[in-house]
This record gives sequence, C-alpha cells and structure tokens, in this order.
Amino acid sequence: MTATPAQRVRSSGRKGSSVRSSASGEPKADSPAGAGGRMVYSFGPSGSEGRADQKLLLGGKGANLADMCSIGLPVPPGFTITTEMCDAYTRGGDVMPDGLMEAVARAMRRLEAETGKRFGSGDDPLLVSVRSGAAVSMPGMMDTVLNLGLTDETVLALARRTGNDRFAYDAYRRLINMFGGVVMDVSHEVFEAEFDRIKRQFHAKADTDVPTEGLIRLCESYRRVYRKFVGEDFPQDPMRQLELAIEAVFRSWNSDRAIVYRRINEITGLIGTAVNVQAMVFGNMGEDSGTGVAFTRNPSTGQNEFYGEFLINAQGEDVVAGIRTPRPVVEMKKWNAKVHARLLEIKDILERHYLDMQDIEFTIERGTLYMLQTRNGKRTGAAAVRIAVDMVKEGLVTEERALRRIPAEDLTQLLLPSFSPAAKKGAKVIARGLPASPGAATGTLAFTAEDAVERARAGEKVLLVRKETSPEDVEGMHLAVGILTSTGGMTSHAAVVARGWGKCCVVGAGELQIDVKARRLSVGGKTFGPDAVLSIDGSTGEIMVGAIEKTTPKLTGDFQTIMKWADRYRKLGVRTNADTPADAKRAREFGAEGIGLTRTEHMFFEGDRIKAMRKMILAESEHDRRVALKSLLPYQRKDFIGIFTAMNGLPVTVRLLDPPLHEFLPNEPAQQKELAAELGVPVKKIQQRVAMLHELNPMLGHRGCRLAVTYPEILEMQVTAIVEATIACRQKKIDARPEIMIPLVGMRSELHLLRRRTEETIERVRAAKKFTGKLDIPIGTMIEIPRAALRSDEIAKDADFFSFGTNDLTQLAFGFSRDDINSFLPHYLEQAVLERDPFQAIDQDGVGELVRISCERGRATRPDLKVGICGEHGGDPSSVRFFHQVGLDYVSCSPFRVPIARLVAAQAALG
Amino acid sequence: MTATPAQRVRSSGRKGSSVRSSASGEPKADSPAGAGGRMVYSFGPSGSEGRADQKLLLGGKGANLADMCSIGLPVPPGFTITTEMCDAYTRGGDVMPDGLMEAVARAMRRLEAETGKRFGSGDDPLLVSVRSGAAVSMPGMMDTVLNLGLTDETVLALARRTGNDRFAYDAYRRLINMFGGVVMDVSHEVFEAEFDRIKRQFHAKADTDVPTEGLIRLCESYRRVYRKFVGEDFPQDPMRQLELAIEAVFRSWNSDRAIVYRRINEITGLIGTAVNVQAMVFGNMGEDSGTGVAFTRNPSTGQNEFYGEFLINAQGEDVVAGIRTPRPVVEMKKWNAKVHARLLEIKDILERHYLDMQDIEFTIERGTLYMLQTRNGKRTGAAAVRIAVDMVKEGLVTEERALRRIPAEDLTQLLLPSFSPAAKKGAKVIARGLPASPGAATGTLAFTAEDAVERARAGEKVLLVRKETSPEDVEGMHLAVGILTSTGGMTSHAAVVARGWGKCCVVGAGELQIDVKARRLSVGGKTFGPDAVLSIDGSTGEIMVGAIEKTTPKLTGDFQTIMKWADRYRKLGVRTNADTPADAKRAREFGAEGIGLTRTEHMFFEGDRIKAMRKMILAESEHDRRVALKSLLPYQRKDFIGIFTAMNGLPVTVRLLDPPLHEFLPNEPAQQKELAAELGVPVKKIQQRVAMLHELNPMLGHRGCRLAVTYPEILEMQVTAIVEATIACRQKKIDARPEIMIPLVGMRSELHLLRRRTEETIERVRAAKKFTGKLDIPIGTMIEIPRAALRSDEIAKDADFFSFGTNDLTQLAFGFSRDDINSFLPHYLEQAVLERDPFQAIDQDGVGELVRISCERGRATRPDLKVGICGEHGGDPSSVRFFHQVGLDYVSCSPFRVPIARLVAAQAALG
Repeated sequence: MTATPAQRVRSSGRKGSSVRSSASGEPKADSPAGAGGRMVYSFGPSGSEGRADQKLLLGGKGANLADMCSIGLPVPPGFTITTEMCDAYTRGGDVMPDGLMEAVARAMRRLEAETGKRFGSGDDPLLVSVRSGAAVSMPGMMDTVLNLGLTDETVLALARRTGNDRFAYDAYRRLINMFGGVVMDVSHEVFEAEFDRIKRQFHAKADTDVPTEGLIRLCESYRRVYRKFVGEDFPQDPMRQLELAIEAVFRSWNSDRAIVYRRINEITGLIGTAVNVQAMVFGNMGEDSGTGVAFTRNPSTGQNEFYGEFLINAQGEDVVAGIRTPRPVVEMKKWNAKVHARLLEIKDILERHYLDMQDIEFTIERGTLYMLQTRNGKRTGAAAVRIAVDMVKEGLVTEERALRRIPAEDLTQLLLPSFSPAAKKGAKVIARGLPASPGAATGTLAFTAEDAVERARAGEKVLLVRKETSPEDVEGMHLAVGILTSTGGMTSHAAVVARGWGKCCVVGAGELQIDVKARRLSVGGKTFGPDAVLSIDGSTGEIMVGAIEKTTPKLTGDFQTIMKWADRYRKLGVRTNADTPADAKRAREFGAEGIGLTRTEHMFFEGDRIKAMRKMILAESEHDRRVALKSLLPYQRKDFIGIFTAMNGLPVTVRLLDPPLHEFLPNEPAQQKELAAELGVPVKKIQQRVAMLHELNPMLGHRGCRLAVTYPEILEMQVTAIVEATIACRQKKIDARPEIMIPLVGMRSELHLLRRRTEETIERVRAAKKFTGKLDIPIGTMIEIPRAALRSDEIAKDADFFSFGTNDLTQLAFGFSRDDINSFLPHYLEQAVLERDPFQAIDQDGVGELVRISCERGRATRPDLKVGICGEHGGDPSSVRFFHQVGLDYVSCSPFRVPIARLVAAQAALG
Repeated sequence: MTATPAQRVRSSGRKGSSVRSSASGEPKADSPAGAGGRMVYSFGPSGSEGRADQKLLLGGKGANLADMCSIGLPVPPGFTITTEMCDAYTRGGDVMPDGLMEAVARAMRRLEAETGKRFGSGDDPLLVSVRSGAAVSMPGMMDTVLNLGLTDETVLALARRTGNDRFAYDAYRRLINMFGGVVMDVSHEVFEAEFDRIKRQFHAKADTDVPTEGLIRLCESYRRVYRKFVGEDFPQDPMRQLELAIEAVFRSWNSDRAIVYRRINEITGLIGTAVNVQAMVFGNMGEDSGTGVAFTRNPSTGQNEFYGEFLINAQGEDVVAGIRTPRPVVEMKKWNAKVHARLLEIKDILERHYLDMQDIEFTIERGTLYMLQTRNGKRTGAAAVRIAVDMVKEGLVTEERALRRIPAEDLTQLLLPSFSPAAKKGAKVIARGLPASPGAATGTLAFTAEDAVERARAGEKVLLVRKETSPEDVEGMHLAVGILTSTGGMTSHAAVVARGWGKCCVVGAGELQIDVKARRLSVGGKTFGPDAVLSIDGSTGEIMVGAIEKTTPKLTGDFQTIMKWADRYRKLGVRTNADTPADAKRAREFGAEGIGLTRTEHMFFEGDRIKAMRKMILAESEHDRRVALKSLLPYQRKDFIGIFTAMNGLPVTVRLLDPPLHEFLPNEPAQQKELAAELGVPVKKIQQRVAMLHELNPMLGHRGCRLAVTYPEILEMQVTAIVEATIACRQKKIDARPEIMIPLVGMRSELHLLRRRTEETIERVRAAKKFTGKLDIPIGTMIEIPRAALRSDEIAKDADFFSFGTNDLTQLAFGFSRDDINSFLPHYLEQAVLERDPFQAIDQDGVGELVRISCERGRATRPDLKVGICGEHGGDPSSVRFFHQVGLDYVSCSPFRVPIARLVAAQAALG
C-alpha cells in the first residue's frame, strides 16, 4: 500500500510551501477528533461554530461559509466535517472514524431545527448537498453530490410541498445519477443511455423537453441501472446516503486526479479535505428562481466592475455545463432589481470583509438570494496588478497587503508576448514539450544553428529545432525567434540559455523525430520541412501548426507602482544574469541593481573569436596558448566595456571561464575538417585533441577554476581584459564596478592561489597602464561544490563575496546530471519520490541546508561577506523566499525574472 | 610569492597526518623565539638542555643527540637550533631571526669550553658539522656541511696539532667543496674538474693517491674556483661560515626536492627543520680510526642480530659513497675488541632506551667511540612483524606498543608476490605508470579482453594491456596475470577492480602508445607485440622488459600473532568487498568478519549472462524485461548461494544493481553487429538503444536506486535471488546472513519506496517457498550522495544500516570525476593545491565532515543504526584511523587489505 500524501508530508517532516500548518490544523495521531475534539462545525443564520482562520481544519469553502454566516450574509445553513476526519479516515485504512456519524446525526438534527424541515421524512423534506473543500481551492478536483435526502418516499413529499412534480423528479434523477457516479463509480454513460432512451420514447430533443412522466420513468430506470451496476438498491435511508457520500468525498482526496492536481499545482502540507453538508436551495423552482457566478471585479483586466453571469430557473451545474447561454449579471436589474441591489451590496460587504476580489456563487430560490460560496478570485497577472493598485487607492488594503497578494509567477504574462487566447482556441496542437522559457513564437524551421543564422540574417523568422543544443549553437539560438528541442529538461542548455534571454523555448518534446540531414521533423505521422510554419508556446509547452496571433502586453503605470512598492519593502537585492550589453540594459530597465553573473564563455562563440579560442585550445605550448589568447584579449575587453557601460555605477560580477575546453571544439567531422583547413593542421590532429579532451563526466571534469589552476594564462588574459576595460571606462567617466568571480572552487587552496594570480595581474595591468586611480575590484567565488559549502569558513578567508551556483550545487548535492535527469525525473514525480524538479525550485532541505551552512560559516569568518545566488533558482518565487529567509544579500536572475524577484523579495520581507 | 608549506598548513587549519602539533611545537607568530624563548639547546657530556620528546622543536636528530647525552652515551658535544627558527626565517622572508646568531655565539663559547678547543683560532681549532634534522626523518633531503671552522690559518694549526698535514688539507678541501656546493650553489662538477686536474698532475688514480702537496694545491684551486663562481672569497671568518651554513640549512627546508619529498611521503604538519651544530670527530685520523653504520637488528628479516658495516680510516661519507667496500660489523672484534664490545653494549642500551630497533651512525677517532646519530630504523614489512613479536617476547615492549609501531602499509609486502630486489636491479624500465594495485606480474601482451581470455584459457600468462578498461573487459582482466593501462588514475576502473582482486595493476602509463588493431605497444622508440614479455611492478608503477624473478612471501606465525593482537584491541569491525566465493574465502582467511560490499554488476558479465542482461536492457516492455530477468535469476541465485556458503555465519551485504544500463551494452560496431545477430534484431535498433541510453554525465545519471525506482522488476529479480539463495542455504544448514543494500539514495522517499518493494518481494518469495523459519534480512542504504549525508536523520527512518560509499561521496563532494581527474590532479599536487589524492586517502575536512554529519544524524534517529564504509578508503590507513575516530562500526575493504585494516584499526584504538 502506498503511503498517503498526508503521511508522506508528515513523515518527511516537511511543511507545504503553499500552506503553513497551524497548531489547530495538525491532528494528533491518537485522537482523530483533533486538539479540540470537535468533528463537525455547524453554520447558519443563528451563528457559526467555525471561523474564517480555520481553513486548514474546515477547508476554504467551509471556513468561508461559516464566516459569511457570521457577518450576516444569507447562506443556507449546514455544517462542515473537519479535514482531520478525512485524515483519520485515510490513516485508518479507509474506515469512517469512530463517532463521526453520531456527530453528523447531531448536526443534522440542528440543521432540521434551523430549517424547520425533516431529513428523510415528513411533508417538508430536508435536502442537502455534500461538497468537498480543502484549505486550498482545487476546482473540479473533488466530487459533489446534490439533493441528498430524496428517496422514493420523500420525492413525493417534495412534489407535494413544491407543487411541482417535474421539479421533484428532476431533482431525484439528478441525485441517483450523481450518487451512482460519484459515490458508487457507476459510469455516467449508462445513465446517459437511459436518459436518451426516455427522450426518444417521449420524442424530446432537450432534457427540458421531457415531461414529468418521463422523469418519473427515468427515476425508475436509474434505480434499475443503479441496482444492476452497484449490486444493491439505491439507498432509501437518507442517513445512509449521507454516510456514503461523505466517504466518497474522503476517498476522492486520494483519487489519482486529485493527487496529480496537487502535484502539478505544488500543493503540499494538507492533511485532507473537509466535507460541507448544506441545506439545498434551488434556482430551478421557476421563473422567480435562478443561479449565477460572478467576480467582484473583472478578473481579466482588473477593472472595478461587477462581472458575472446568471441563468433564470436553473441550477448551478447548468451554468457550468454551458447548455443554455447565461446572461450578464448587469441584466439582472431588469429581472429582479431588489436581488440585484442586494447582490451589489453583498459584493461590497465581501470585498470589505475579505479585502480582496471575490469569486462568488449564488442562487435565488423563489426570489430569495442565497450565497453558496465566496472565495478569492483567480485573475490574470494584469488584473492582479491593477486590482492591487486600485484597492490601495480605494483605501481597502495597505500597500503591504496588496503586494503580498500578487502571484509573482503571473507577472511573467505582463513581460512577454503570448498567443491571444481566442486565436489559440482553434490551433492544432501536434505535440507538447516542457515549457522551458515562457513566451510565444512562430516561425519556419531551421534544423541547424548555421541554417538558423543564415536565414535569420536574411530576415526570416525561424524556430531553431534541435535534438538538443550545445554552446556551438548559441548564435543560431540567439537569432532564432524560438527554440524547440526533442530532449533535455527544464535546465538543459537550451532552457537555461533561452530563459536567460527571455526567449521562447520548448524542450524535451520527446514525440518529435528530428532528421537533421533530411531537414525535417516528424510527429504523429505528419512531416514538417524547413518551410513549414509552427508556433510554440513557452508557457504551456504546446507546439502548434501555423502562425497564431500574438498579443504583446505593455508595462502599465500600475506595474511600475507595484515595483516601486516592492522595492520599498524588500531586503534582498535583485541583480541579473547577463552576458551582453543588450541584456544588461534590458535588465536594468526591469530594475536590476547590478549583474550577479556575467558568463564569459558565450563571448567566445561569436564570429572569429571561436577560431582564436580553438587555436588556444589546440596550442601545444604555453607560448602558443598565450599568442592565441592575446588575439582574444581585445574582444573580451570590448565586451566588458560594453557591459560596464550599460551598468554604469552598478556592480558587474564577471565569472571567469567555466566550461571544459572541449565544449569549444567541433565534434562533427565536417566541422573538424573545416577547422583543420583553417588552422593548417591535419584533421587527425584535431580529432586527437578532441579525443584527448573527451571526458566521461564533463560536469565533474576539467573546468571552472581547475582551468585557471592548470592554464594560468587564461585567467591572466581574462583579468587583463576586465582591468583594461575598467580603466578605459573610468577614463571616460563611466563608473565601471567589476567583481571577479572564480567558479567551481572546492578548496580554499584553489581560491588562495587564484586570488593571488588575479591580484598580481590586476597590479601588472595597473602598472602597465600607469593608472593611479582607485581600482578596488572585489574577488570572490561561486559556492557550487558541496565541499566548498562545508568549508566556507576557510574559503571566506580569501573571498570578498560568495555567489551560490545553485544549479551545480543541486547537481552535486543530489548526484543528478541536469542533462540526463529526464530519463528518471518523470517517474520520480509520478511516484511522488520528488515533489518538484529540484532544478526549478531549490530543494530547501538538502541543497538549501548547504546554502545555509555556507552562509553561516562564511560570515562567521568574515561578517561583511557579501552573499548572493546566481543559479537558475534566483528567479523562482519559492526559492527567492528561501534565500530571503537564509539572509542572502541578493539574488541574481534572468532579466525577465527581475520584476518577479523584486516582488517576491518584498513578499518575503513582509512575511 | 607562494605560501610556505608551514603557512599553508597553519592557515588551512589542518593538522599533519604524520605529526601532531604540540604546544611547544607551535610558535607564536609574534615571537620567533617560541613559547620558552630559547633559540638554541646545547648538549654534551656535561648534560643536555633538550629532551627526547621535543622532536617537533629540535628535530629527530637533535632530540636524540640530546637524549643520548642524557643517558651517558659518548656523543660529540654541540647544540641544536630550533625548528621555530627555521619557521621564523621562512616567514620573515628568508632573513635570519633577530638574536639568533648571538645565541649561537654563546652556544659556541660553551662548546669551546666543553671541548677545550677554540673556534677559528688557537693551536687546537674547534671544527663543527652543521646538519639539518626535522621531526620526521628525511634522508638525503637536507644538506650537511662538515669541518666548519677551517680557514687558511686554522688548517695550519690542525695540521700541527694532528701531526698530519694530509688529513688537515683533506679536511679543508672537503669543507670548501661542501660549503661551495651546499651553501653557495656552486656546481659540484667545477670542483670535480679541479680535482681531476690535480690527480692528472700528480699521476694519481684514486683520491687517496694524491699526496699532501697535491691537496694543498687543490685547496688553492678550490678557493679560486669558489671566488670565480661565488664572486667573493671563501670566508675566513668561521662565524661567518657558520651563519651562512645555518641559513643554507634553513633554505634547504623549502628546496624543491624537500617539498616534493614531503609531498610524496605525505609529511605534513611540520614548521621547519632544526639545525645541529656539533663538534667534529674524525674517523680518518689513521688506522686506529674508523666509521660505520649499523642496525640493532636485521632490517630486512627482523632477526635479532647486530647488523652493519664499518670502514677503517674513513669518514661517514666514504661509507655512503661506496668507493671502498665496508666490512661487516662483526669483523670489528678483530680490529678493536674493546670498541666492538662497547658498541654491543650501546646497542642494548639504545634498544632498551628507545624500545625499538635503532639505525645508528658512529665514528671511532683514535680508538675512542663516538655516537653520531641514532634513530628508529626503517625495515621491511616482514622485519617489522618479526621485531614487534620478538620484542614483546623479550619483554622489551608491550603488545600495544609493538602494534602501534608496525607501519600498516608495509604489510602489503607480506601478502603479495614481489620482484626479488636483486633481479630487479638489472631490469630495463621502459616506462612508469601509477602503482594502482601492488604485486608483481610478468606475461606476454594481450591487447583485448577477448584475446586475454582466449590465451589465458590456453594456459598462457598474459598481461592485459589497454588504453583503459571497462566492465566489458572484466573477464579478461580476471584471467590476466596483471593489468596495464595507458590512461586512468588510482581509482580508474582498472585500478579499483584490480585492487579488489589483489591483482597487480599499473595504470595511467601515459608514455605507452597502444595500437589495438596492430596489436602492439610503442614506447621510447621501441615496439612490443603480443609475444613480447614485460614485467610490471604494481608497487612502484615500473614497466620492465622481460621476465624478472619473483619472491612470494609466506604468512608467518609472527604475522598471525600480530593479527591476533590487533583483533584484541581494535573496536572497528573489518569486512571485505568481494563479489565471488573465491574472493570471499580469501578475505575470510585474512580475517574478514563479513562482506561489506558485494557488487552484483560484475556478475552479469560472465558468459551467457551478458546476453540475457542485454536482452533485458533492449526489451521494450516490462513483460519482455521480466522474461529476460527470469533467465538471469538462476545465475544470481547460484552466485549468492556460493557467497553465502563461503561466508557461512557472517553477514553479506549485497548491493543491488548500481551502474547505468548502457555500461552493459557493446559500444563497438563489431560487437553491436554480433549482438544484433544473436538477438535477431537489426543492428540499427541496438545502435539506437545505445544512443538513447547515452548519458552526458553517467556518473550523475540513471543508475543506482534510480534504476530500481523506474524498473521495479530488476529489484524484484535481485531480491528474489537473494531470498531464494538464503532459503536454499538455510535448508542445507548454512547460516546465510544477507543484508540488502540500496545504492545511491539521495532522498528518504527513494529508500521508503524501495524498502517497501524489497519487503514485499521478500514476503512473496517466503510465501512461494513456504519457508517458515526466521528471515530477518536487514535493509539498508549506501550514503554516497551529499544530500543523503545531510538528510540522514530522515533516511535512517527507513534504514537498518548505512554504508558510506566514499568513492562517490568524494566525487560529489568535490565535483571530481575519478575517471577524468588525471587531467588536472598532477597540477594540483604539484602546486600543493591538494595534499593527497582524495580518492586514496579520505578528505577528512570535507568528505569526512559529511560522514560525521551523517553518522550523528542517522544515529540520532536510530541509536542502533549499524554504520560502515565500503568505499576504496576502507583499506587506507589514514582513512581507517579517521573512521575509527568517527565511530563507525566497520570498514570494508579489498581482501588483501583486510590485515592492514585490522592492524590500523587496532592502532587507532590504541590512540
């Protein structure tokens, strides 16, 4: 038997990222009734036993129902069974907790008193709904049963009481159908087939055309079908109906789709769902009845307008089902001005009470308005920003509260183009990959980087389509409008590079068969050549045929306001990872306070540089290497001048060469031949050198500072370029503030040696340039090797700053190659061995502990040590929150994630 | 300027592995005179200021000279300048510490008083020697100057006083030569050329044929040469001579060869060398004088006999130089019975005093015996064992002391064949590699594993010669008498596998050019084909031409005695790593108390198994995989029955499949073709599968428990085989005690899932076999992922035991691929960035901290958690000491290292 998520959560000692456990939300293992011992909380016009802050115990819906009652809103009375009961049910091996049904029976008696109706008997039978409701909203995930309490006997009473036979039997057939499906797992189709048969029999087209007699017969057929599939009669004891329905809700918590939903939405830390039992009200009791859903503001734009729809003489499910077209809620005024006015009143009450935009459900039964649900409404990024700013202006909420509420991840929508939802509806999705870098891109297909470069330069919009990308592809990647790969994960080369640029990218679309030679891509029996046009959605991973219309949102004044507020509260600095002046400039516009990571390796791929780089690598003596490096120096200097100029006055952390040298050599025979011809050496020599430099595990190989230890001249060239660029800038009154970062340090001795070499080079250049001004260039290191994290007390003696390279730190702490993880990561997520991809959200328990240890030890040695993070996690909300907690000085992320990081940093500081 | 080793040692906060710092040995940075303020310690017949336990301060030689004086032995008087002075000299930028020469002058005055001679004047001039002497003996590493105090003036006085002009000028020319060479860096050849000229002039063949006049002229030429090369006159002020000589000794501490020697011999934790200034005595004053060296016991066999050599009318250097043939010390009786008797007396005094075999130097000046040095004598492994046992029998030392003293590493010599030293002298060494696995092997050359198998089966003794080995080569490796590779380091595949078997292996012999196709090996212009015979020495890395005679030591009774004693004191258990019944049996003979690691992957390479394995890997459905696995089951079961039987009554830890599946597939086209034919599939399919399984970083890829998560059926087959084998054994009254070990766990969730699957399988097999006996099979995990070490509190909840896989833990903690490390490791050692290869001796500060953290956290959760280590470090002495300190329950190592581990464990327990 698999452990339940609740058990997993508890046993692994983790707290959910989205929900914090509170004392009242944590049941004692030996006491299913929890700390207070209460299993059931009633609510109704006469008052509520529950409170709004008991979401963990009562679920969001239950807590809000109780709360709405407390503030005097018209809510049908009912009661909530606690989430602890669900947990006890699961942990007890799917057995109803002792005493629960007795408590339910007592609550039902109270409900009968409150409504003046009787459950399962009498001439005014009480009907109830049973709904699930966890602490976090999971729409569509949990099951609902309506009209419980109807039996062969009470259906007659209901018909009598309402004077509406049709209504009564319609309610009854809905109950049997729902109950059979949800509680007893009877396929919906068998009921559907019966309905169709009846419809044919009565020559009815729509459900509503079936006469009362047909519905009576339908109920009979439904009961027969029920008996056939369930093996027993549809229960005529309402309390039995109730018990089975409650159990079904409990079970549904651990249904596959619920588990998957929670995993996909990263909902952890919950123990189960609550169950809400509530007196039924009916919107389908005639033309004076109705039902609707609404938002207190426009969830798409954020505009302050009451926004929703209603249907007359209908039940909630009819609105959702889309069979009849609902009417805008403004039109309600004409139908029932009183109800409309009351609704507007309630809208204001709710916003003032919840201090947020609400998503409500309501029903009007014979002219009386009932609120069935309220919850914070989902909204687009744009709406979130506007609502936040408006509500502050309206005096409803404080800046702090407004900031806290904006879902940081949604800001991406504001910064990147996206396909217009309408256009996307008709699009043909041919495959799906991983949404590696958000955005929308349409183009023809280039199957090699060279082809992409050529055609892009000729003005064509191309998608670069590769099995996987390598640093050799960088120019083509840069010129393409989007990148699509068939292998690789969220942190593959393509993904990382694309995210860095804010370029749309979909990776790991395994169904694609790419034939580079034939220049074509096959999927699902279809083939696409270089002239085919595809569109890729980097936010969803969809790959679609043809061009799809895009919308490019503009940064609004409200957005700037939010950012200004965020900056006011956050403690964490926000820098960017940028390798070019263009990226640096863009990031600065987004509010980056410096560059936390400039990778220098990308600089060696452009044009002629790669030739000089290759000459350097193929050199057989230090002298030849120095000659080749000398020809690279002017390029590097120019690069740095450009970046320093763009970041005038702000710090720029330059990382010295990091990747293994073989990444710069061509692997394909054709390219090797070309290189041999260019350099005038036999191709065999090139091949030998490639073979010699080959590594079994390049990630763990001769790279990072290990290059600088063995080839001091590379470090010297790079430091020379940095210092010469700095001096050149300063002489032009540009305030260049370089910081030199030495990568992949595992031992203090490495940093000690390289720091000295760096300092010597700085002094040498200063002397050669006769520069007399101040040249205080901090020298620091990346902490990306577990050993370095542990030995940070020692390493800090030679470091002016630390910057966590959490990508490599994650690779090494887990022993996961991010290039190879896709062979098992899907299984790990599916089997809940991992909750999230640790390359997306930092693993706080393991990798995070290394970060924490390193921080503590480094600062113990050197209290003024500046500590930042420049891995991919620097732009991930949950990770940024963690880095705030650990007390880092700054995070550094892709330019496009800078606003997100600023917001999250503020949210984290606000607690 | 590079940091001095002393600075490095201090600044990195490390303690040397061979020498512990004591309070008196640690100078204060601001006080060059150290804690006591004393710079110089005198010794002589009138008493000693130093003590034997002040080795760190006075060096080994100085402390022992002081000590010998204290116990009344005849030692020429002198004084010792402390190691702190050397440290102060170095740290002061090679400047003589303030006040030192004043202290030296005072000590010289005392020495003059003691000897009744005058330094640099008078008719009885005092001559002194200046010798280095660190706390650890470094023979040949530090420089010595004799006869200091001779000048143009005092040489005349010496001649007068001794009545021996020849002697006086011979002493003077030796001084100028030594002083010029050692202190002033004048090449020895320029002096040699002068000597040759004089010899020709006087028609002398040997040095001793040169008449006095010739020596007088020689002194003149030497002074001329000295002036020419040094730029100034040979100093005529004896105090100046002394000062320069002392400085030279200080400087020599940081000479390249000294640094290299210390690194090679892993001597760390020392701050410098002491300097011993001692009155000269002369063995070359005539036929009543002489000099010699001796051991108090035979250093080769350990026999209790006085063992040494002496020369009449000679100085110490003459014995070493080997120009004249010295006579065995027993013959001294005939020459001077009194001196001989006194020497025997002193021998006993020394052994009783130092409680160890001594290596002594002595000089007889005109019939008077002087002791110049005593130190613990170096000895072979066999001698170490015999001396230890004998000395306990003789009542000289306790078992504890005897155990503590045996150099554990030397036991290897007793367990493996080696080339006889005599035969090796004449051997032609064609190349050198890394001494990966000790022993000696001679054979013809096989260039593929297949060839090795074929020829070995036909009875030929072959060396397997490969660029590098892979798991496919295992059978050939096993059947070869030795393994030689041109690439790879001490922990490459070849090295690890060979050490596991105790098979001789030399790796990384980079000079070898191997042409597999042409079946030949070229080196230094010579070529060797398949019929050539080479010999390889796995203890030195030498590769030699032809067959060389071998000696195979037998395990003596003394050895068994030592092991018995070791077992009495050690607290650490000692298990072995063994994959076959033969290995298991051998390890048991060596005293292994169980198997700490049975790798199951090697089992899949033999004969038909690899075919089934490949079928399994190529299977496209779980069903096909299960079919292939089913055919592997009987093999596995048989393997386990064999091992359980060999280890009857002892625990056997079986590690489930660990390597990535692609390691089992053939990479070469020919083999792929063959496999395709065998399996009846197109070769393209095989190639596709190989390409699909290819990983960029296999070390960090789909392996270890990740295989078991994604392919549960592999785990099920292996566990089934283990349980069936256990039941089969138990039914035959064989006490099988398997322990199931799950590799590469990084998260508790992995172990939790796999433990459940393992338990379910155990129960399934038990039920199927209707076995009713006890089947308590512990289930544990390897800790080899840094994250697992940090999360050990959680992981321990699902583990009955932990076993540290320190190879992988080292790879991940450092981010080093042990397969690729050779591209930079030599640079790292050379530049002292690393002190030792962390794959040989565990890195206590980094990897060790992970071990410590894991141990603490694991045991905090589960106090009865059994914790061992099964990485390569399990057989390394310094590592075993560390594991004892951390408090592990056992180490597991190669069978041949079991005795070493037993001894070191005892030594560690004895403190």
